[in-house]
Amino acid sequence: MPYYIGDVIKDSKKLIARTPEKFEETGIQVKLNTRVEGIGVDEGIVLLAGGERIPYDVLVLATGAVPTLPNIPGTDLDGVFVLKNLRDGLNIKEYIKSNQCSKATIVGAGFIAMEMGEALKSRGLDTRIVYRGELPVKKWDPAFSTVVLEELTNNGVTFMAHQSPVAVERGAQTRLSLVTDKEKIDTDIIIFALGVKPETNLAREAGLAVGESGAIRVDSSQRTSREEIFSAGDCCESYHRVSKRWVHIPLGDIANKQGRVAGRNIGGYPLTFLGVVGAQSFKVFGLEVAMTGLDEREAQRSGYAPAGTIIWGRSAAASMGEGHRLGLKLIADKASGKLLGAQAVGQSGAVGRINTLSACLWSGMGLDELGYLDLAYSPPFGGSWDIIHTAAHVLKKQL
Amino acid sequence: MPYYIGDVIKDSKKLIARTPEKFEETGIQVKLNTRVEGIGVDEGIVLLAGGERIPYDVLVLATGAVPTLPNIPGTDLDGVFVLKNLRDGLNIKEYIKSNQCSKATIVGAGFIAMEMGEALKSRGLDTRIVYRGELPVKKWDPAFSTVVLEELTNNGVTFMAHQSPVAVERGAQTRLSLVTDKEKIDTDIIIFALGVKPETNLAREAGLAVGESGAIRVDSSQRTSREEIFSAGDCCESYHRVSKRWVHIPLGDIANKQGRVAGRNIGGYPLTFLGVVGAQSFKVFGLEVAMTGLDEREAQRSGYAPAGTIIWGRSAAASMGEGHRLGLKLIADKASGKLLGAQAVGQSGAVGRINTLSACLWSGMGLDELGYLDLAYSPPFGGSWDIIHTAAHVLKKQL
Repeated sequence: MPYYIGDVIKDSKKLIARTPEKFEETGIQVKLNTRVEGIGVDEGIVLLAGGERIPYDVLVLATGAVPTLPNIPGTDLDGVFVLKNLRDGLNIKEYIKSNQCSKATIVGAGFIAMEMGEALKSRGLDTRIVYRGELPVKKWDPAFSTVVLEELTNNGVTFMAHQSPVAVERGAQTRLSLVTDKEKIDTDIIIFALGVKPETNLAREAGLAVGESGAIRVDSSQRTSREEIFSAGDCCESYHRVSKRWVHIPLGDIANKQGRVAGRNIGGYPLTFLGVVGAQSFKVFGLEVAMTGLDEREAQRSGYAPAGTIIWGRSAAASMGEGHRLGLKLIADKASGKLLGAQAVGQSGAVGRINTLSACLWSGMGLDELGYLDLAYSPPFGGSWDIIHTAAHVLKKQL
Repeated sequence: MPYYIGDVIKDSKKLIARTPEKFEETGIQVKLNTRVEGIGVDEGIVLLAGGERIPYDVLVLATGAVPTLPNIPGTDLDGVFVLKNLRDGLNIKEYIKSNQCSKATIVGAGFIAMEMGEALKSRGLDTRIVYRGELPVKKWDPAFSTVVLEELTNNGVTFMAHQSPVAVERGAQTRLSLVTDKEKIDTDIIIFALGVKPETNLAREAGLAVGESGAIRVDSSQRTSREEIFSAGDCCESYHRVSKRWVHIPLGDIANKQGRVAGRNIGGYPLTFLGVVGAQSFKVFGLEVAMTGLDEREAQRSGYAPAGTIIWGRSAAASMGEGHRLGLKLIADKASGKLLGAQAVGQSGAVGRINTLSACLWSGMGLDELGYLDLAYSPPFGGSWDIIHTAAHVLKKQL
């Protein structure tokens, strides 16, 4: 099977030209569009397609993740896309332009699907999101997913629930047709946004340990099960400070941090990666949607006894007569009173709250502290009791 | 000297009607517009003006703070105001309306002066801010105060630096005239926004301990130096978790928390107030201005060896091609690498960052952790390395 190492550099060469020269100036050889066929761990060589063997003392596996495509006919047709890297994005733009697309269909309802929904609609395409479930972004509480659904609908994106794709076909009036278990959807372009899987084939074939999450196992210095092989980014696990488990959360900020930690350790300036708390966010039209920590299901699986509460407030004090509706959900452990997770949705103030709560989760804060945390109060930004305090008090009573 | 207890309830009675009835329904007697002449701590009585004596088992002193007026002639003239409570605000509005004021002058340049500057200018008044120093909001780094000054100027508020008031006089063309050590300023209304002092006279006369800050000394349960007397709000101290000192920070959110803690302890549901980290913010026109923790001077006085750095970034990732200019200053201890304080200014994203950093200060986080803190990354809200991470890395190198 074909492999690429360092697809980010490859993209950079083609698309941002600047980076490879910078690498070469430092004496680093850049091999672009080069497939790696395998790793000889005993000899310490990387085997390239074509037979070239590159020796290494230290190897970094940054193979990233692969977007999931459904196992249905027609996904190889022109006009069917996934969105993982910059190249994908440019290909989509180019295809829409050169084919004068007017109808777009996105399959899946995670945050990439939401962002693509906004992007395609904003480009003027008639945009549908097809999803097998009831509500978008199922990682969030249904109360918040409902707000996301309203935001899609209010902005003219059609959400088609309870449908699964069964085939992609060439279309009649339109370029393509997405056949689902319910109907046939005319469309010019289809984006499959069904999540990603860590690209671990090279690692597995080299005998490296793979974690329960399915991603490459690393330690806090980003070392794999072999001392001389490091891994960073979407292909490997990270330590979750709340669940106390090694998890696979393929996000760009985590990948950046892991890369830096790996580099420091390889370069002889030891550094440990302190882990993650599961902070993430996206924007869809005018809405901020964010979460951190664990949801109830994850908390239960990690051995906690979770309880959760949802508070609706506003992003400014009532006295200001302005601000936007803001929803905050807190999840805490009944036994210890510790915060386990949080979710928020609103036109403003949601991401700020989730970042604050991420710092609280990082330090293992409990509801007692959270209810009296000193925040930068001013009426344009919240009440004298912030929605964080109120939610902590309400949840505390429920424990 | 005359005193009021519970001026919040008094204001509520007059202005928000709802609250006193609620109090009386619960069997609590509300004495409004009633002056307290003294406290007889040995007998346990409160002595009212007119001679009435009210016995108590437990007493709460919530006397608040008093706005500072300069010791110059003419501050008793009609049209001279301070802004402390709701009544002051209503009086100012009423005065502006009934006198058809067109020129306003604010003396002082703290956050109340900034908020009043925006409020008066937005009402259409020709507005000046007179200040003895060079730049507004001197608690912030001059680089950030300069941004605040630009915001005032861009919105048509005149900032008159290096001037101190020497007298208020009746005006000729205008209702009043503010005489400074440099010139005579025609104005219809003058607002003195020179800060507040804790109202401690009753407490001092009753022999209660007053802290170095000049505010009433309390412990973590809001008890004063007498077991049966509690204090909460702008008249008393709070424990600062970073400086490890008892300080006087008269802010509404802290007062709310202290009141609740006092109530819990009086009611037999013990609770300790966990202290503050100095988080505060204000909005002036389109600008968010916020800080938390200590500045270099305060840090030095508390025994730290502070170092600080300022980073300029944007509130969204560069790839988004949008977002606002955002300045972040971090201050850390050279010896331990611990975060000591932070300041931020920008059209968006400043308060969110400061709240996150307040949670970090609360837990005593160091720059090593801060540089790799898990935040809810998404390009519309920041880079994959947030400005918080970048500032932590830059400052870490400087230590």
